[in-house]
Amino acid sequence: MKSPVVSIIMGSDSDLPIMKEAAKLLSDFGITYECTIVSAHRTPERLFDFAKNAAERGIQVVIAGAGGAAHLPGMVAAITHLPVIGVPIQSKALGGVDSLYSIVQMPLGVPVATVAINGGGNAGLLAAQIISLLDEEVKGKLIDYKEHLNRTVIEKAKRLEEIGWENY
Amino acid sequence: MKSPVVSIIMGSDSDLPIMKEAAKLLSDFGITYECTIVSAHRTPERLFDFAKNAAERGIQVVIAGAGGAAHLPGMVAAITHLPVIGVPIQSKALGGVDSLYSIVQMPLGVPVATVAINGGGNAGLLAAQIISLLDEEVKGKLIDYKEHLNRTVIEKAKRLEEIGWENY
Amino acid sequence: MKSPVVSIIMGSDSDLPIMKEAAKLLSDFGITYECTIVSAHRTPERLFDFAKNAAERGIQVVIAGAGGAAHLPGMVAAITHLPVIGVPIQSKALGGVDSLYSIVQMPLGVPVATVAINGGGNAGLLAAQIISLLDEEVKGKLIDYKEHLNRTVIEKAKRLEEIGWENY
Amino acid sequence: MKSPVVSIIMGSDSDLPIMKEAAKLLSDFGITYECTIVSAHRTPERLFDFAKNAAERGIQVVIAGAGGAAHLPGMVAAITHLPVIGVPIQSKALGGVDSLYSIVQMPLGVPVATVAINGGGNAGLLAAQIISLLDEEVKGKLIDYKEHLNRTVIEKAKRLEEIGWENY
Amino acid sequence: MKSPVVSIIMGSDSDLPIMKEAAKLLSDFGITYECTIVSAHRTPERLFDFAKNAAERGIQVVIAGAGGAAHLPGMVAAITHLPVIGVPIQSKALGGVDSLYSIVQMPLGVPVATVAINGGGNAGLLAAQIISLLDEEVKGKLIDYKEHLNRTVIEKAKRLEEIGWENY
Amino acid sequence: MKSPVVSIIMGSDSDLPIMKEAAKLLSDFGITYECTIVSAHRTPERLFDFAKNAAERGIQVVIAGAGGAAHLPGMVAAITHLPVIGVPIQSKALGGVDSLYSIVQMPLGVPVATVAINGGGNAGLLAAQIISLLDEEVKGKLIDYKEHLNRTVIEKAKRLEEIGWENY
Amino acid sequence: MKSPVVSIIMGSDSDLPIMKEAAKLLSDFGITYECTIVSAHRTPERLFDFAKNAAERGIQVVIAGAGGAAHLPGMVAAITHLPVIGVPIQSKALGGVDSLYSIVQMPLGVPVATVAINGGGNAGLLAAQIISLLDEEVKGKLIDYKEHLNRTVIEKAKRLEEIGWENY
Amino acid sequence: MKSPVVSIIMGSDSDLPIMKEAAKLLSDFGITYECTIVSAHRTPERLFDFAKNAAERGIQVVIAGAGGAAHLPGMVAAITHLPVIGVPIQSKALGGVDSLYSIVQMPLGVPVATVAINGGGNAGLLAAQIISLLDEEVKGKLIDYKEHLNRTVIEKAKRLEEIGWENY
Repeated sequence: MKSPVVSIIMGSDSDLPIMKEAAKLLSDFGITYECTIVSAHRTPERLFDFAKNAAERGIQVVIAGAGGAAHLPGMVAAITHLPVIGVPIQSKALGGVDSLYSIVQMPLGVPVATVAINGGGNAGLLAAQIISLLDEEVKGKLIDYKEHLNRTVIEKAKRLEEIGWENY
Repeated sequence: MKSPVVSIIMGSDSDLPIMKEAAKLLSDFGITYECTIVSAHRTPERLFDFAKNAAERGIQVVIAGAGGAAHLPGMVAAITHLPVIGVPIQSKALGGVDSLYSIVQMPLGVPVATVAINGGGNAGLLAAQIISLLDEEVKGKLIDYKEHLNRTVIEKAKRLEEIGWENY
Repeated sequence: MKSPVVSIIMGSDSDLPIMKEAAKLLSDFGITYECTIVSAHRTPERLFDFAKNAAERGIQVVIAGAGGAAHLPGMVAAITHLPVIGVPIQSKALGGVDSLYSIVQMPLGVPVATVAINGGGNAGLLAAQIISLLDEEVKGKLIDYKEHLNRTVIEKAKRLEEIGWENY
Repeated sequence: MKSPVVSIIMGSDSDLPIMKEAAKLLSDFGITYECTIVSAHRTPERLFDFAKNAAERGIQVVIAGAGGAAHLPGMVAAITHLPVIGVPIQSKALGGVDSLYSIVQMPLGVPVATVAINGGGNAGLLAAQIISLLDEEVKGKLIDYKEHLNRTVIEKAKRLEEIGWENY
Repeated sequence: MKSPVVSIIMGSDSDLPIMKEAAKLLSDFGITYECTIVSAHRTPERLFDFAKNAAERGIQVVIAGAGGAAHLPGMVAAITHLPVIGVPIQSKALGGVDSLYSIVQMPLGVPVATVAINGGGNAGLLAAQIISLLDEEVKGKLIDYKEHLNRTVIEKAKRLEEIGWENY
Repeated sequence: MKSPVVSIIMGSDSDLPIMKEAAKLLSDFGITYECTIVSAHRTPERLFDFAKNAAERGIQVVIAGAGGAAHLPGMVAAITHLPVIGVPIQSKALGGVDSLYSIVQMPLGVPVATVAINGGGNAGLLAAQIISLLDEEVKGKLIDYKEHLNRTVIEKAKRLEEIGWENY
Repeated sequence: MKSPVVSIIMGSDSDLPIMKEAAKLLSDFGITYECTIVSAHRTPERLFDFAKNAAERGIQVVIAGAGGAAHLPGMVAAITHLPVIGVPIQSKALGGVDSLYSIVQMPLGVPVATVAINGGGNAGLLAAQIISLLDEEVKGKLIDYKEHLNRTVIEKAKRLEEIGWENY
Repeated sequence: MKSPVVSIIMGSDSDLPIMKEAAKLLSDFGITYECTIVSAHRTPERLFDFAKNAAERGIQVVIAGAGGAAHLPGMVAAITHLPVIGVPIQSKALGGVDSLYSIVQMPLGVPVATVAINGGGNAGLLAAQIISLLDEEVKGKLIDYKEHLNRTVIEKAKRLEEIGWENY
């Protein structure tokens, strides 16, 4: 079995419903990945070990999801030189604005590639886009994926035009 | 010289104009402190060492200031069991709402005692309030400080009442 | 029976579901506490008496929760020299941003140690961190608590890695 | 000299540039007023005494301005049964949203009649509207004031129409 | 039957669940009121007639509730010299921030006494506070009401202290 | 059959419940329209073709609805010289503030006529107002529509006044 | 001289620096316009008269700018059946979010075609787009304008590519 | 000369002060890039051509900066399968929240790797991180860069500790 090239981590198992969308997408693209929990706040040493060793273990992209005062993506990015994709998880009180600001507003020197609030699937896709620079097969699948998106909308549009909004 | 009981740290030397207000206040209260730079994002190992050893070194309260995706206070709190006071530094684009949310919205298990945006002085005062539980002299100074605040306002009020707002 | 060292107050009994998390946590840490209702707006004299006498009664930390135009924590802090922890309660229309701003944005001289919106448990924990400076037993429990948090996440991570997200 | 019927109070003398607009307006309307500083956070006993005695002293409307965690208007309203007008003062970091939320989001039982951020003049005018229910002379001046506003706009409109925006 | 001294108007009958809290409160205080629908946007002439004639009809305070781009309170205040109390109704998409800003941020010359989002009851109470300047009986009831609020909280506090939060 | 003069497009069929309100309104006004799906992000070429050809096909007004990073209205407006009405669709995490800002904050040279969040019906009405400049029949219906709105409110007001809020 | 087909109104002459951008643009397009001040709050009768008579006077599009609790565009739209374009003027405390919400969040039945905060120029352009449905000459100018925008950017791009960002 | 592997584009030359930070950083890392203006709204065809051809021309990462209703990054991402990094430019009225939401809140299928408001330098760095997966030399420079950041902070910390905040 090939070792993982993408690592999907999340601050809590309550983030799994969002983060598994990244996993599904990587599966569909045939990209090997690992998926686990690393909490910046509850397991800071695990965070350090994870981030220090990720590149050596062959990981090429890290996807990190967290909510509220979401420090996980930024702290991983502080330690590794790998590209880190951050997924702000929607929070109960503030709708995820707190998560978004905590992840995206990083200082010069430590970027996090932030996707939409609850954008687990897009994090997977962005990882695939990065991997595609190294892997022609993934690139081909990305092009197919875009065509598939396109076709799906066009079919829905056709159906809506034909039967009208009253019957859609 | 007594070793410091409060540690004032900040993510960047650009935070110093705000964070030195904490230092001034601790000086006035006769509380020993140290004041340095620890960047969660640029010096993650320094952050770890700092937070791991703070208690052992005799530190009793940590004051941490940071702006934007402000991870310093929360990451220190993740590692040490000491009380950590967080100071959200006003940011250029978002006025410090990003700093505030990144610091205050911590998950269960890892609190950060957050003060107002740019509230460096109040962070020093909150540290003094905590230290006062151990130190009767500080407690006496706190009571004096409150009386001084009170008196200052009353004097200004008196003057305003006497000369009127037109001449104030 | 030992007299309480932490006082948990809230503006309304509707805040109890959040504030009892503080009580639970203090119980677990073996810290004596009291828990009652003090409304800044409906019982201002009770607020004054409470805040004036808290220190004398042996209280060392006050935890105050309130929502909306949340004045309780700040007004207690205005009167007592004890450290006051503020818990912003989530509000219906504004999600608790109103509560958060009303509690955290205190002027110089009167800090409130603010925790996350609905962060009742963390308020209890922060009180325990402060008490731990005086009480070695509490300090030991804090260290255990952090280890427990750590272990719980690591066990969940292990399980997720073993059975995969599809079966978690 | 007639005793004041309106009391203008503010949390800090830094609020005076806004609050004196209320004083000016009351002067213009021939309404007696007092103008002083009462800080909810720095002079809580003064606040209590003020609010407890305001009605007895003949005050009929209180205008209270404060910024940040602005507790002054709400705490006065908690103690007196008089109508209290709140003026949210613009704050540095958050533009006064913190002041506005702290003043307007009062719980059932304790209203504060909130005006716009930095709306000192309108607070004076609202007080005049309330006083006008008791005082025909003030009512007459209010009607004149509205006509004056109207006329001023119409004159400016006329001038703009005549000379064109290029020359205005 | 005495003619109404307070007029409760709302932009739409969907605002009634909030606005009837004002009506209930005025009933309890024995203040005569009317309650109807006036839409600034759908019945602008009705709005004009209402606002032009309110004072003449003996109305002394207008309470106006509206949501979204809430123009009703401000437009009534533009036309009448009576005090106008604005109630921002919570809106679906923006939680009532739109309603609040549309009502409270009035320009110099045309104040609206704004209460909390969905603060129908407090609008009634504020009207009662204003009426109480003219009516000793209402004043007495206001003082009773405040005492009742106080007593209710104190009873709840007592019960919570006695049975503990575990059994409350 | 007359060819459509208004084109209603939306980024996704999940926007249909809002956008069909525009369609209903245009039907009621006897304005011919088409209704389909054009996704700026998933079908960019379809977007280009649509926008390039709309004017030639006889379309006079485009109504475009989209949510989140809502680029559809602005991109159509970038390509066609026709007036484009934008409908911000309410989003899950941010309530539609993201949609609103993405649609309304267009740079000089490329306006989008933005209506309220979820304002599908009003988009239809605005299109009708524009079409009415060319079509006296539509103008007549607009005047009737306004009268109908007026009458409906007045009838509800009458009923509320007659039966009272207790029975409404 | 041809009578105006577009009416540019603003709530205050302080809005003129923004609103004159609309006037300039209409001049460039050869569209006749008038430009004056109509304040919803200070001249409500003028507002009524203006809105009632605009259509009869030959006006086809109204552009209305206002800031803060910006009621002018919505109130004009409440009275006339003409299309109304709203320009939210940037406000001091809240940056124009108050103006934007007050203008765009209109209820069903009364749309306002809202442009960006301070988007005076785009309001003029949107009016021109609407007028172009009636006037082939304006349509031609719109197409030229879009080409001009395009060319200007392409020239700047060329220059930037040639001389590099270091010398631009 | 090697052809560019990164393309830096911006919506307007007013974005250059921010976007040139990306260019500088890529220069320092020895990564070839191009830097030009592509406006989604003013040059939509240029946008299409750019995005359609970027991959074929050898571009591996696109960095796109835009402000306000910032559609450029998302529209490029809609057309190309390359990874697109979005830089939200601070806007005058809303501080860049509009730019941030317009760029980050992309729907499933079309991610944009968003960095902080005005985060031009970090966009360059993120591009370098991606390129480093293909280029060992860049990887080495990234590791050096991180060490340099670290060292710089440690030197400043040392100096602050030595001379004290009073003399820093």
